[in-house]
Amino acid sequence: VHEKEIEIRWRDVDAYRHVNNAVYLTYLEEARDEWLEGVLGRDSENLWDFVLARIAIDYRSELTQEDDVVVARCGLQAIGTSSFRTKEQLLGPGGRIAAEAEAVIVARNRAAGEARALSAQERSALEAVLEG
Amino acid sequence: VHEKEIEIRWRDVDAYRHVNNAVYLTYLEEARDEWLEGVLGRDSENLWDFVLARIAIDYRSELTQEDDVVVARCGLQAIGTSSFRTKEQLLGPGGRIAAEAEAVIVARNRAAGEARALSAQERSALEAVLEG
Amino acid sequence: VHEKEIEIRWRDVDAYRHVNNAVYLTYLEEARDEWLEGVLGRDSENLWDFVLARIAIDYRSELTQEDDVVVARCGLQAIGTSSFRTKEQLLGPGGRIAAEAEAVIVARNRAAGEARALSAQERSALEAVLEG
Amino acid sequence: VHEKEIEIRWRDVDAYRHVNNAVYLTYLEEARDEWLEGVLGRDSENLWDFVLARIAIDYRSELTQEDDVVVARCGLQAIGTSSFRTKEQLLGPGGRIAAEAEAVIVARNRAAGEARALSAQERSALEAVLEG
Repeated sequence: VHEKEIEIRWRDVDAYRHVNNAVYLTYLEEARDEWLEGVLGRDSENLWDFVLARIAIDYRSELTQEDDVVVARCGLQAIGTSSFRTKEQLLGPGGRIAAEAEAVIVARNRAAGEARALSAQERSALEAVLEG
Repeated sequence: VHEKEIEIRWRDVDAYRHVNNAVYLTYLEEARDEWLEGVLGRDSENLWDFVLARIAIDYRSELTQEDDVVVARCGLQAIGTSSFRTKEQLLGPGGRIAAEAEAVIVARNRAAGEARALSAQERSALEAVLEG
Repeated sequence: VHEKEIEIRWRDVDAYRHVNNAVYLTYLEEARDEWLEGVLGRDSENLWDFVLARIAIDYRSELTQEDDVVVARCGLQAIGTSSFRTKEQLLGPGGRIAAEAEAVIVARNRAAGEARALSAQERSALEAVLEG
Repeated sequence: VHEKEIEIRWRDVDAYRHVNNAVYLTYLEEARDEWLEGVLGRDSENLWDFVLARIAIDYRSELTQEDDVVVARCGLQAIGTSSFRTKEQLLGPGGRIAAEAEAVIVARNRAAGEARALSAQERSALEAVLEG
């Protein structure tokens, strides 16, 4: 499981004085991108060959400016033919769960703009993660 | 089903030249808030008594600056004891589906910061919507 | 002077319940980009050859969610050798001035990443605007 | 001069693959708020008694995702009757200047929504900073 500390910005907070629900996805994205870059290699051009197909997020507790820092976690949950599924979390101070999420990322043929099968190399990199 | 046209901003687009995944939630929020205000009455203070508990969003197609405008739709799907569930969509030009989503909104006791049962008034307003 | 109506989003507002100061620049950008596209022609690739070098913005009054819509205005103020300067405004309901701004936009040689002289075509398009 | 490191997010970058011009103001805000809290005391309620009246920002060089981190600096430049002026900078890796800015912050009577004179306590706190 990859973990990333993210500082909460004043701009992240809305008129309810809580971090806005859409910003939770920005936090998750930061950890997911970094995790994926670690799994598939530093050649960031690879990352353009994947696309986010689904996120389901459960908001568990509110984040505020006073929380200052959020920890975003991303790990692999399952591998499909042309996609994989992550399990993600946002944690406030003291490990309090702010959100739990799942994301589905699909391999894409960039030229065709269509889903494609995971390459053998991508699959083995992902399987190495699953087996920990 | 409530429908709202939202203009895509340059700031909504990320380095992939697509509207960023988190911004989809901002579009949905715009329609949902307006819809909820219509259902529960113009007294916007009421809206502070509800909190978003979950969103599941399926990204169906990309939105770009050239799409110019997105249509966000929000309708009621089910009513629970202390919450209700919406069915939401984002549509690009020509009715192309950009995303489909479900959200769960929970009634909250603001002072206690805890879930509470829907009031009789809230329930009847929501039921009137379901019965269309 | 080009004018563009922009709807205020919930996400634009911060914990002070006012539109955040950075979002004012997003509103101005929306009008400026549209204005510039009108002046230099629809071939949007041209727009990648210009870069924002400076903004000075005076915040005159607060914008809130209740204002609903802001009008952003952009017009040309002066033409230099490799740059031009705009005069911009944000207006709330009833024409109330929310902000006044000036921006300097510099023509850029994209390959070299350096400022370049305005082309004869760009200059004559801009001069046509100044002479109104 | 107060300095704050801010990590660049994927969401900060626009379709030009540069940090968007409006996000520069968010970076500056992060450093300014922290600096002001340090000067005027931890009671963050005080901060609601000030309002940003002007920013002038010169964009000196582009920031990209690869820069990873930006350093935002804020220091005091001058004190007026009801306002003060800061001098601010954004630095990329190796101290490369990304932007230079000035901001004017005005003391506000929150109830009346109008400018007010700086209190004696505020003035002496600011003067202590100027004298370094």
